[in-house]
Amino acid sequence: MAKEPELRNLDWQTFQEMSTSEKGEYFTVNDKPHHVLNAQQFTRPQLDRLCELATKTRTISKTREGALFIQDLLCEKRAMLYFSQPSSRTFLSFYAACQIVGLKPAEVRDTSTSSELKGESPEDSVRTFSSYFDVIIMRHPKGGFADRIAWMLSQTERAIPVINAGSGKDQHPTQALLDIYTLHRSFDQAGGIENRDIAFVGDLARGRTVRSLAQLLTLYPGGKQYFVAPDSLQIGDDILNILDQAGVEHEVTGDFKSTIPKVDAVYMTRIQDEWDKAHESKDIDTSGFKFTAAHLDLLRDDAIIMHPLPRRDEIAPDVDKDPRAMYWRQVRNGMWVRAALLLSIFERDRDIDAYFDSLQ
Amino acid sequence: MAKEPELRNLDWQTFQEMSTSEKGEYFTVNDKPHHVLNAQQFTRPQLDRLCELATKTRTISKTREGALFIQDLLCEKRAMLYFSQPSSRTFLSFYAACQIVGLKPAEVRDTSTSSELKGESPEDSVRTFSSYFDVIIMRHPKGGFADRIAWMLSQTERAIPVINAGSGKDQHPTQALLDIYTLHRSFDQAGGIENRDIAFVGDLARGRTVRSLAQLLTLYPGGKQYFVAPDSLQIGDDILNILDQAGVEHEVTGDFKSTIPKVDAVYMTRIQDEWDKAHESKDIDTSGFKFTAAHLDLLRDDAIIMHPLPRRDEIAPDVDKDPRAMYWRQVRNGMWVRAALLLSIFERDRDIDAYFDSLQ
Amino acid sequence: MAKEPELRNLDWQTFQEMSTSEKGEYFTVNDKPHHVLNAQQFTRPQLDRLCELATKTRTISKTREGALFIQDLLCEKRAMLYFSQPSSRTFLSFYAACQIVGLKPAEVRDTSTSSELKGESPEDSVRTFSSYFDVIIMRHPKGGFADRIAWMLSQTERAIPVINAGSGKDQHPTQALLDIYTLHRSFDQAGGIENRDIAFVGDLARGRTVRSLAQLLTLYPGGKQYFVAPDSLQIGDDILNILDQAGVEHEVTGDFKSTIPKVDAVYMTRIQDEWDKAHESKDIDTSGFKFTAAHLDLLRDDAIIMHPLPRRDEIAPDVDKDPRAMYWRQVRNGMWVRAALLLSIFERDRDIDAYFDSLQ
Repeated sequence: MAKEPELRNLDWQTFQEMSTSEKGEYFTVNDKPHHVLNAQQFTRPQLDRLCELATKTRTISKTREGALFIQDLLCEKRAMLYFSQPSSRTFLSFYAACQIVGLKPAEVRDTSTSSELKGESPEDSVRTFSSYFDVIIMRHPKGGFADRIAWMLSQTERAIPVINAGSGKDQHPTQALLDIYTLHRSFDQAGGIENRDIAFVGDLARGRTVRSLAQLLTLYPGGKQYFVAPDSLQIGDDILNILDQAGVEHEVTGDFKSTIPKVDAVYMTRIQDEWDKAHESKDIDTSGFKFTAAHLDLLRDDAIIMHPLPRRDEIAPDVDKDPRAMYWRQVRNGMWVRAALLLSIFERDRDIDAYFDSLQ
Repeated sequence: MAKEPELRNLDWQTFQEMSTSEKGEYFTVNDKPHHVLNAQQFTRPQLDRLCELATKTRTISKTREGALFIQDLLCEKRAMLYFSQPSSRTFLSFYAACQIVGLKPAEVRDTSTSSELKGESPEDSVRTFSSYFDVIIMRHPKGGFADRIAWMLSQTERAIPVINAGSGKDQHPTQALLDIYTLHRSFDQAGGIENRDIAFVGDLARGRTVRSLAQLLTLYPGGKQYFVAPDSLQIGDDILNILDQAGVEHEVTGDFKSTIPKVDAVYMTRIQDEWDKAHESKDIDTSGFKFTAAHLDLLRDDAIIMHPLPRRDEIAPDVDKDPRAMYWRQVRNGMWVRAALLLSIFERDRDIDAYFDSLQ
Repeated sequence: MAKEPELRNLDWQTFQEMSTSEKGEYFTVNDKPHHVLNAQQFTRPQLDRLCELATKTRTISKTREGALFIQDLLCEKRAMLYFSQPSSRTFLSFYAACQIVGLKPAEVRDTSTSSELKGESPEDSVRTFSSYFDVIIMRHPKGGFADRIAWMLSQTERAIPVINAGSGKDQHPTQALLDIYTLHRSFDQAGGIENRDIAFVGDLARGRTVRSLAQLLTLYPGGKQYFVAPDSLQIGDDILNILDQAGVEHEVTGDFKSTIPKVDAVYMTRIQDEWDKAHESKDIDTSGFKFTAAHLDLLRDDAIIMHPLPRRDEIAPDVDKDPRAMYWRQVRNGMWVRAALLLSIFERDRDIDAYFDSLQ
C-alpha cells in the first residue's frame, strides 16, 4: 500500500491553496476518512463501505443485545460537539450517533461569551477544548474554519479527527453522506444508485446540499441529473462544468411537471432566503416548484421523494404518508450513517462486520 | 382483556374535542401509561403501581449493585428532553431519572433560534428530532401542544411515547404524580391516602398543581379537602363541581389557623403573580396564608407539610428542620416516581419486581 | 486518628468569620478533601497524594481496559455542574473528568431565567437541584457562595460534596491543583517541586491563579519566587507577607529578561482588564512582559513555561512547539487531576492504587 500523504507535513499556505478534492487524500488514514471536512473527499469505495456499515449498524441495533454491543465499541472515548451556530437538527443527529456507538458527548456553544471575550484566538480556544476529547464535531459560520482546525491540530501532539458538521455556505459533508445513503437504501435491492436519474428542484443556486450531492453522484455513472428551478435560482455553471468533465448527462429546466415522470428520485429543496441580500426571493415565482398530492400520480411507482428538511410549503404535508416519501427516513438515515462514520474513523468497523456475520 | 382503543385510529378533530379524562384511555397500553399527557388519565391501580415501583426502585438503588442493575434496564434507549420553556427543576428531575434507569438523555432548548426561523412547522421540528430518540419528555408554553405531538406521532411509523413535563397553565401530570407519591410514602405505614384530610393553601385560582391534585384525590375516597385562600385566589367552581360529582367533602375557607389542626396534610403554594394581568396580586392580603414556626404547634404530630416549590415566604425557612416538613423529600420523590414511570412505560417494571423480591 | 471537626456543628456566623485556611479542616473527611472550596485548604500530603493519583489514573487510562475500569468506579453516581458564570474551559475539563471516572454529569446554567424569577432564594434553588445529584461542581460570580452552599447542605440530610470551580475574584482551587500537578509532573524525575525557583509574570495584582499558587508553594520549601510585573500590576503585600511568614524567599522586579535564566519555571499571565474600572490597563506598558521566541535562548534547558490560559499575546504562538512550553499539557493535567480529585472524594482512590499495582 502506498504511504498516505500526511497533513502535518504541509504548511498552511500550501494546504489552503489546494482544491477541495486535492485536500481529500490528506484527510485519509488507512483508506478511511480520518478527518471529514468536505463532500468531495469521499471516494466511491469509501461511500460504498460507509453505506454498508450504516446498514449493518442499524441491523445489529435492532436487538437489545446488538445495541449494547455497539454501544460498547467506543465507550472509552469522548466527543466534543462544538456548535457555534445553532442547529438542533444536525446537532441531535450527531449526539444520538455518539450515544449509539458509546462515544460520550459534550457540547460547546456560545463560545463568544467565554474565552473569546478575554481575547483568545479561536484556534487557541478549540485547541484547549480539544485537549479533553477524542474527536471534534464542529459547525461554524466561517467557511474553511474546520479545515484550519484540522491543520492546526495536525501540527500538535494530539491530532484528533475533525468532522465538519456544516461550515459557512459551502460544506456539510455528512448531509451529502446521508443523501447518498438514502439513495443507496432505496435502490439497493434494485441495482443500486448507478444509472439513476435524479431531479433537483427548488433553490439550486444557494444551499450546499444540492451542490454537494450533484458532485458526489459523478461517482455513480450512468444517471442523468435534472435541475428544475426558476431561472434566478438555477444551479451554478461550476457544477455543470464538473458534471461535463465527469461525462454526466444533465438538463436545466423550468418545467417541473414534465420532469417528474422521468426520474428515479425527486430531490426537493427550500428557498433559502436567509442568504438574500435584499429580500429578492420574494419576487421570484416559485409556485411551480412545489410537490403536492396531485404530483404523486406523475411519479413512478419505484421512484422516491427526498428533502434535506426543514421544509416550508415545497412539499405538502399530505404527501408524507405516501410510501415513496423518503424524507422522514432520510432523517434517521443521517443518524445511522453518522454512527457508521464514527465507527469507521476509530477503526471499529471490523467489529461491526464480525458481529453482523455472526447473525447470519 | 378488552382491546385498548388506539390513538392512531382517531382523527385530530375527534381527539381534540374529547374531555381530558376521555383522552386517558388512548394514552394507555397494556393498562399502563404509554403517553403521559394529563393528570386525569391515571387510574387508581396505575397510581398504586407507580408508587410501589418508585419505592422499589429507590430501595434497590441504595446499593451500588442495585443502582447498576437499574441503570442497565434502559441503557440501549435514548430520551429527548424538549424544553422550550425554562425549567431547571423539572428538567433536572427528569434528567436524573433518565440517568437512574440508564436512558441516555439529550436536550433541546431554544428551538426558535434554529429551524423555526427557517419556516418549519413546530410539528415537523418535533417529528424530526423525535427520529433520533425513543421517548419525548416535553415542556411547552402552549396548552395542548404535547397532545398534538402524541397524536401526530401516532400517525407515523415511530409512535414513541410522549411525556408532558408541563404545558401552558393546565397540565403538569408528573407533578401530580409526585404529590400522590409523597402522600403515599408519608401515610403508607398508617393506612394509606384514603380518608386523609388535606388543606390546600395560597393561590388556588392559578397554578395547575392544586387543581390536578384535588382531582386525583377523588380516587382516594373518605378524605375532606379544605381550600384556604383569600377570596380572589380561591379554587375554581369547576374543581368543586368535580369533587361534588365524586362525592368528596370539601370546605372553602379564609381561616388558615383554625384549619391546620384539622388536617393530615397542609399543601402550601406560592402566589403565582407571573399570571397577573396588571399586578393585581400586589393588592391581595396574603399575610394570613403563610406557614411560620408558630404554626408548627397547631399541626398534628403525624401530619405533613407539602409545597411544590419554588417557595417565596409562604413557608419560613426555620420550618424546614421540622420532621413534618416534607417538601424537600417531595423533590426527591419526584425523581424516583419519574424513574418508575419511565421503567413502566418501557415495560421494565417486572424486572424491578423480580430484583426487589430477590432482596427480601 | 483524631476526630475531624464537622461543618454541620458550626453556625454560619462562626464559619463565615474563619480565615480561609482555618476553614480547611472542616472540608476534610478521612484526611481527604470532601468539599473543595479554596486552595489553602490542601495539605502537603493531600497534594502529593492527588498528584500521585492523577498520574496513576492517566496511566491506567492509556489502555481501553484500564479506561473501562476507571469509568466503572463512579458510574452509579451523578454530578451537577452548576455554572452560573460562563466558562467553557473549566466546565469542559470537569465534564470530561466526570466522564473519565464514570460520574454522569448534568448541567445547570442560566438559573436566573427559571426559579429565581419566581422569587426563590439561591440557597433553595441549589438545595433543590442538589437533591438529584451526588456532588455539586459550581462556578458562581459571588465570592463565598460555594462556602455558603457547602455549609447550608451540611445542615440537611444530604450533605453532598461541593467543589468550587471558580468563585468571584478570589478562589479557583482546582486551577491551583493543576498548576501544582504540572510542576510535579515536570520535575518528578528530577527531585520534585521543592527548591524550585519560579517567576510569575504579567498581571499579578488581579487574577486568582498566581495568588493561589504562590501561597500553595509555601508547602514546598527551598524555592524562591520572583514577581515580574509593571509596578501597577505587582503582587499584593498580603501575599508577600504570607511568603515571609512561611520563610519563602522572594523578589519583586520589573526586569523580565534578566529573571528568565534564573528560574525553573516561568509562569506567564494575561492582563486581566476585565477587572478594570476605567480601562486603566490601556495606559500600562506591558511590552516588556511578553515571552517571545527570542526568550527561549535565555531559558534553562530543564526549565518550563506555564500559562493558565486563555492567552492573548503574552506568549508568541511560535513558542508553542518548544518542548519546554508546558501550557498545553497543563490543560490536560487539569482534567486528570480533577478526575483524581473526584475519585478521592468518593473514596475510590484505593481501587486506583490496586489496579495500578497490578500493572507493574
